[in-house]
Amino acid sequence: MINTLIRISYDGNNYNGYQVQANAPTVQGELERALSVIYKQSLRINGAGRTDAGVHARGQAANYHAPFYINVKKIPYALNSLLPFDIVVTEAGEVPEDFHARFAATRKIYSYTLDRAIFPQVMKRLYSLHLPAKLDLDIMSKAAGLFTGSHDFRAFQATGSRVVDTKRTLYRVELKERTEEQLLIFYFEGSGFLYRMVRLMTGSLIRVGLGCLTLAEIEAALKDGSQGAAGPTTPAYGLCLEKVLYDHMF
Amino acid sequence: MINTLIRISYDGNNYNGYQVQANAPTVQGELERALSVIYKQSLRINGAGRTDAGVHARGQAANYHAPFYINVKKIPYALNSLLPFDIVVTEAGEVPEDFHARFAATRKIYSYTLDRAIFPQVMKRLYSLHLPAKLDLDIMSKAAGLFTGSHDFRAFQATGSRVVDTKRTLYRVELKERTEEQLLIFYFEGSGFLYRMVRLMTGSLIRVGLGCLTLAEIEAALKDGSQGAAGPTTPAYGLCLEKVLYDHMF
Repeated sequence: MINTLIRISYDGNNYNGYQVQANAPTVQGELERALSVIYKQSLRINGAGRTDAGVHARGQAANYHAPFYINVKKIPYALNSLLPFDIVVTEAGEVPEDFHARFAATRKIYSYTLDRAIFPQVMKRLYSLHLPAKLDLDIMSKAAGLFTGSHDFRAFQATGSRVVDTKRTLYRVELKERTEEQLLIFYFEGSGFLYRMVRLMTGSLIRVGLGCLTLAEIEAALKDGSQGAAGPTTPAYGLCLEKVLYDHMF
Repeated sequence: MINTLIRISYDGNNYNGYQVQANAPTVQGELERALSVIYKQSLRINGAGRTDAGVHARGQAANYHAPFYINVKKIPYALNSLLPFDIVVTEAGEVPEDFHARFAATRKIYSYTLDRAIFPQVMKRLYSLHLPAKLDLDIMSKAAGLFTGSHDFRAFQATGSRVVDTKRTLYRVELKERTEEQLLIFYFEGSGFLYRMVRLMTGSLIRVGLGCLTLAEIEAALKDGSQGAAGPTTPAYGLCLEKVLYDHMF
């Protein structure tokens, strides 16, 4: 068995999320279908991040154990020829036998994109949240700074989540303006993220920028888990899993 | 009657072109449907450029004669609330009674976008032609220079076109690399364009970049209309009508 890591990009709009489900199109389902054609048997693939319905990826990662050897340079071409146009495999490589794309991941980078044009930019509409309102970027950067570091993020997860350890480390929370394209992009790089955490933090940052939430309220939520500072949960279609990082060079 | 000019952007993927047709969704059809709701009667709208099926626009222009006055600042919001999400009106203004969006247009700017990544960028796939092959940009820029100026472009129109005067003036043919996004964009600014002329010129520029067409062949085609230098016609989904220019400030 050859443990193989692949990098995947996808347009999440047409999928009910990454993780396989009965009776709904998913990215994992499409990948496993394509793999079964190539390897002539059904295979299970382990995704690094189980992105929600509608969420995109430029750098999702996943591994599978192949029953026979195929030149890794050819794997993306073979898979892409079998996948729908909105899922594209960009890389493949061999990894150690016990490597697991999810458990081995040391960091993930997500982006959230806002369309800042007065009227929605049609060619961006599928990949960004249209928000033309005036935002105070300085105070938003300060709020982003509060999220950075190791905190108990229990206030910033969807209700009903049963994760026990809610401590996470964010290495970078950054606002980037792409003026020519009238986009404002948030980047979140962290050791891991709670359920809906990125979309809830994005909602908080937007409220701070609108003057509807104070830095003190975010600080309090990070200190004692107090409610009310998180969200609203921004729509899935603005979110993108940019990259999954591993300690080694694959 | 208040002659009104509007600016329109659209994602052409879901439309059978700009111009209204029976039994097929068109941008003009959607605009006229929305106008008929607002003005409570059917209205005809004159588009500046009759873009083909699948072609996009960021700056299409069109005018219509309104039976009663509506504040022009409110018109985009009113129309957008009635239009599908892939058509967005970005501006409206009053123009002289005899103004016609097509006949008054002095220049148009089109763009054609190539995705230069090794594998298609999923979030660009609906708006660009994927072409990872090595291209000689220097010689392509020289070819772009040959197109610039006043020429008889009869070799660069789709066969079957019945236009008599095939002389056009191009003020700018430019290649722009957007390295971070791995895009190569061609801009064509001209007094007017023959049918499929931009897509045929784009096909020629690509062949030059691949080393399959010489500058001399393009020169000859522009001088004596000789065949063989034009095209192939690149796909509609890479083309975008960026802007329609008028002599006055509307």
